[in-house]
Amino acid sequence: MQRITVESVQICDRTLALTGDQHHYLTRVLRLRAGDRFVAMDGSGGWWETELVQREDGQWQGNLLQVLDLNRELPVRVTLLAGLPKGQGFDEVVRQTTELGVSRIIPVVSDRTLLNPSPNKLQRWQRIATEAAEQSERQWVPPIEEPMSFAGAIEAVADSRTYLCVARGEVPHLQTQLRQPLTSPPPDTEEITIAIGPEGGWTPEEVQQARQVHWQPVSLGRRVLRAITAPGVALAIIAAHYES
Amino acid sequence: MQRITVESVQICDRTLALTGDQHHYLTRVLRLRAGDRFVAMDGSGGWWETELVQREDGQWQGNLLQVLDLNRELPVRVTLLAGLPKGQGFDEVVRQTTELGVSRIIPVVSDRTLLNPSPNKLQRWQRIATEAAEQSERQWVPPIEEPMSFAGAIEAVADSRTYLCVARGEVPHLQTQLRQPLTSPPPDTEEITIAIGPEGGWTPEEVQQARQVHWQPVSLGRRVLRAITAPGVALAIIAAHYES
Repeated sequence: MQRITVESVQICDRTLALTGDQHHYLTRVLRLRAGDRFVAMDGSGGWWETELVQREDGQWQGNLLQVLDLNRELPVRVTLLAGLPKGQGFDEVVRQTTELGVSRIIPVVSDRTLLNPSPNKLQRWQRIATEAAEQSERQWVPPIEEPMSFAGAIEAVADSRTYLCVARGEVPHLQTQLRQPLTSPPPDTEEITIAIGPEGGWTPEEVQQARQVHWQPVSLGRRVLRAITAPGVALAIIAAHYES
Repeated sequence: MQRITVESVQICDRTLALTGDQHHYLTRVLRLRAGDRFVAMDGSGGWWETELVQREDGQWQGNLLQVLDLNRELPVRVTLLAGLPKGQGFDEVVRQTTELGVSRIIPVVSDRTLLNPSPNKLQRWQRIATEAAEQSERQWVPPIEEPMSFAGAIEAVADSRTYLCVARGEVPHLQTQLRQPLTSPPPDTEEITIAIGPEGGWTPEEVQQARQVHWQPVSLGRRVLRAITAPGVALAIIAAHYES
């Protein structure tokens, strides 16, 4: 069944008010007709099987038939904290990690980041996340937060277990660490943060700051990964750990 | 240290004969001078610390100083058998899975593949694999084989444990299966094949053929992944299993 993303405010009393764009998409692009069904998802966990109907005044709306219970979400909330790479690379990071179940994404303007992104970029990434969530049939669209400094990011994820991915050095593998019993923070906060630097990695000062707040340095394997590849790999490892 | 990829035939008696392009790259792009060192890798596991020297006749060559023992390879050989997606998507598949340690890549012209690639494409993918192997500091450059049919691919990987990734249905997770003790083929063939369909997945006929030769259907998680994302995810899971 075809899916569209809607805003919660569009839904009232089991009725979905369609925007002009959504009406166009459903009737012109997908060529649905009155009585056809589609899935409306609100990006915050709500999914409804919905019937397209034309009202007496000629306007179109959706009638919510039933809540769909398709759990595609990870059993753990994962925040990705990623150094912004040069060029277009972040598009792919947003797309892949959304497909793989990330809960929110915090772009970090690291000491090695050249780029300070425009508001347009942020909108673009949010649109990519929405598309990727639809495509992978997720209920939740991860928010892309405003880019922040490394120090700001440390504060933003203070309540989660945080893993700092480093490309070199003798550190345990992320998968080995995931198997360790939780000590601090307590096990009932099933919230993980994974911090991945830009090309060239985090600076020694950033690693130092992270160690002071007890982030766990981890490896993603023997090979040196691109900054664009590493976030998807980390999410793949976390998802497989919790879903297998 | 900077790295270049060379052919085995360029090496004779601890001397590396440089091609014009390599000489240009070392002296003009990297701006190395006589006596400077770089790493020569032959793409088949050989890595040498090499000194750039100018001979009496004015020509440049490399003197191999020592074998470098940097093992970045997976302890298991992994063949990726991937349905060719539409458009440019296969570039990214080659790049990511090479970074993640794949041993060879077999593009499959599936019933759902539109594209029958030109010889240029194959050269392009091999170049991408070479670059990705250099970048991730691998010793081994995975060969990209000639695209083949699904039936041909079945024969080509007959001696390995093969996992067929399917997007839907109740099948065990790849990671769960990797933990199972090997039954057949015997455990001393540490060779794995991972088969990933094009957009839309393998056809029911292909799945049927695969089951007849005892390929194990597996899931890569709850979410529906793009054909471009899935190969990297499978390699990430395999690598983490063997390296953690």
